[in-house]
Amino acid sequence: MKTFLETSIQQIQKKNPLIHHITNYVTVNDCANVTLAIGASPIMADALEEVEEITALSEALVINMGTLNERIVSSMLLAGKKANKLNIPIIFDPVGVGASYFRNRTAQTLMKEIQFSVIRGNLSEIRFLAGQNSVTKGVDASAKDSQKDTDFQTLIDSLSLSQPHCTFVITGATDIIFNKQQLMQVKNGCAEMSRVTGTGCMLTSLIASFCGSFPTQIFEAATGAVISMGIAGELAYNKTKAQGTGSFHIALIDEISKINTQVLMERGDFVETEY
Amino acid sequence: MKTFLETSIQQIQKKNPLIHHITNYVTVNDCANVTLAIGASPIMADALEEVEEITALSEALVINMGTLNERIVSSMLLAGKKANKLNIPIIFDPVGVGASYFRNRTAQTLMKEIQFSVIRGNLSEIRFLAGQNSVTKGVDASAKDSQKDTDFQTLIDSLSLSQPHCTFVITGATDIIFNKQQLMQVKNGCAEMSRVTGTGCMLTSLIASFCGSFPTQIFEAATGAVISMGIAGELAYNKTKAQGTGSFHIALIDEISKINTQVLMERGDFVETEY
Amino acid sequence: MKTFLETSIQQIQKKNPLIHHITNYVTVNDCANVTLAIGASPIMADALEEVEEITALSEALVINMGTLNERIVSSMLLAGKKANKLNIPIIFDPVGVGASYFRNRTAQTLMKEIQFSVIRGNLSEIRFLAGQNSVTKGVDASAKDSQKDTDFQTLIDSLSLSQPHCTFVITGATDIIFNKQQLMQVKNGCAEMSRVTGTGCMLTSLIASFCGSFPTQIFEAATGAVISMGIAGELAYNKTKAQGTGSFHIALIDEISKINTQVLMERGDFVETEY
Repeated sequence: MKTFLETSIQQIQKKNPLIHHITNYVTVNDCANVTLAIGASPIMADALEEVEEITALSEALVINMGTLNERIVSSMLLAGKKANKLNIPIIFDPVGVGASYFRNRTAQTLMKEIQFSVIRGNLSEIRFLAGQNSVTKGVDASAKDSQKDTDFQTLIDSLSLSQPHCTFVITGATDIIFNKQQLMQVKNGCAEMSRVTGTGCMLTSLIASFCGSFPTQIFEAATGAVISMGIAGELAYNKTKAQGTGSFHIALIDEISKINTQVLMERGDFVETEY
Repeated sequence: MKTFLETSIQQIQKKNPLIHHITNYVTVNDCANVTLAIGASPIMADALEEVEEITALSEALVINMGTLNERIVSSMLLAGKKANKLNIPIIFDPVGVGASYFRNRTAQTLMKEIQFSVIRGNLSEIRFLAGQNSVTKGVDASAKDSQKDTDFQTLIDSLSLSQPHCTFVITGATDIIFNKQQLMQVKNGCAEMSRVTGTGCMLTSLIASFCGSFPTQIFEAATGAVISMGIAGELAYNKTKAQGTGSFHIALIDEISKINTQVLMERGDFVETEY
Repeated sequence: MKTFLETSIQQIQKKNPLIHHITNYVTVNDCANVTLAIGASPIMADALEEVEEITALSEALVINMGTLNERIVSSMLLAGKKANKLNIPIIFDPVGVGASYFRNRTAQTLMKEIQFSVIRGNLSEIRFLAGQNSVTKGVDASAKDSQKDTDFQTLIDSLSLSQPHCTFVITGATDIIFNKQQLMQVKNGCAEMSRVTGTGCMLTSLIASFCGSFPTQIFEAATGAVISMGIAGELAYNKTKAQGTGSFHIALIDEISKINTQVLMERGDFVETEY
């Protein structure tokens, strides 16, 4: 992982991958800005008439369920199938799955029709996708509890039925990145991040920026993005402390735009564990 | 009112109410962030397929007309009726009513079909809802003039025909909160607030956060939100002064995230008056 | 040009023109905030049912293709034709033209059916509109190269076929404003501006704010907006330097809200050249 971190940021900035987003209208501006901040290029397009073409131009595709409607679901399916055909990594953010039948049905359809490279959510969302009981209501689950209470081997077994090659990212106090082979814990980050809307969506865009630059190292790419986001959160909090959540929000984007190898090596707090 | 203010912020943070927003795509990020800042949880969802379910999970519903289309109007009606059935408070922001026949017709339909807990607008918008002559064009009306020229008794008589149990909030240099029983004037706030888009929408989200925490004290809840927003504006202006409207915007969210009982008690500038 | 700059900002603030935007959901909040910052009033409305009425109330119309869909294209056509009928200036931002057949077809239809006052894009976008070969993918073209490699006389000849009275703005390291009679180069601005999403869209909103105040001086108005945006970028960078792109973004809006005659006269860096 350290070898990967040593070159990852420069590689993203050199490759400047185009990241096609089909995403919600709540956090879309932040998603575009963090994509630019890390050195990638965002393009937002959700019309049926163009999503396949835009995906074909891109190095990665984000499908974020934040604000769904029927039109956009059709676009997600079209773009996702195109990306699969062209081997373009797809990052799925099942925002709010579990909160409505429409979200549940959409997530299930997407999981059935599309092979994702990474799926990122909170513990409730990922558990829901695995068919496990989960408490929803948009509430972030604690990943600390998850490590105690969650059997990741059982979780990945369920998730692998429809997504055998996918890496999953569960964000919380500790972030967990795992697939059928490996599991990584990342302890970077800070509680303030849950007081700004869209930090999850922004991380999803960062994961896509990393995956678009490293399409053959998806697990490392997802982990690198999670570490980067966590460190940016820590630095932003150190800088703004008691100033409030507006300033923290801006500082978070500042710090993403300044992430470099040195800070990744110094502050990265991660550990690979066995199942 | 002082008794209410003494515990309101802690109560919101303790209850952490879920606030369902059907709102515009211009200011939606700020609405989500102020909802989080005050201690509530935002969820934005406007699809016909899910709005009833999302409303049923929520402690309050915001209906904001900022950027209308036919699809969203249908969702507003569905969600509103559901909220009425479940006695969930609904806060209505009739953005730009008077500016187009479509907005006028939509506001009239919503007023006829749904019982709101609070309606917040500028003087032109509220006068329009009451069937009075009003100058629109998106221009904020001065509430100072309103106190001189507006007969609130006549206004509430008209508004009560379709919304007998509703509390109205007119924002301006002085904010007026009134219903059939009471009228409150709040002088907190500053002129800079009209130089940032969405301060009205953000207040509407704050009102919903308060009402979701105090569903049986709607008048106090609306007043508490108005005072909180006004004080946050004053503190943000004191902090950023000549820095410009971008910094003021961020400082406003900062200050909302730091509002507490002490500052509410010290700076709240309100007076209840008789009709 | 100097005479124009001497009174332009005061004139905008005095007239406070209403700027109707049919625009994308990515940068819409920034567009509204810069419109307010310069002293104009934004109104965002894209429903077929109301766009003609809203346009008729407005002093200028922005048509921005950032996130297209069929519904919004129909609204653009309706609003554009209304604005033409009423001689209201229309500013067109063909975001991402060249990236998909849908965007290309939409831009061509709009160019055929509507007479624009100003079209603003990067060199690739404007070249595409002129039927020239252009590299797209959302990448900003270098305007420095453009001055060497681009024959503006040939470009304006092609563009004039469908838009004989239009002024074109090509943004890049050097910004070029040109029509059939004149060409202006503006060297204000800084590289950091391309690391924040929507600086192009924001400039389009500023151009509309200027044009709405000076409908008979479109070339000067477009140039004034370009100079103002460039200077704001320089000042924002001087203020925030190594802080990061989040702070730069906010400082940019700050500086737009503080632009005045003195700074325009002192820092404006423009030169009119012959074809």
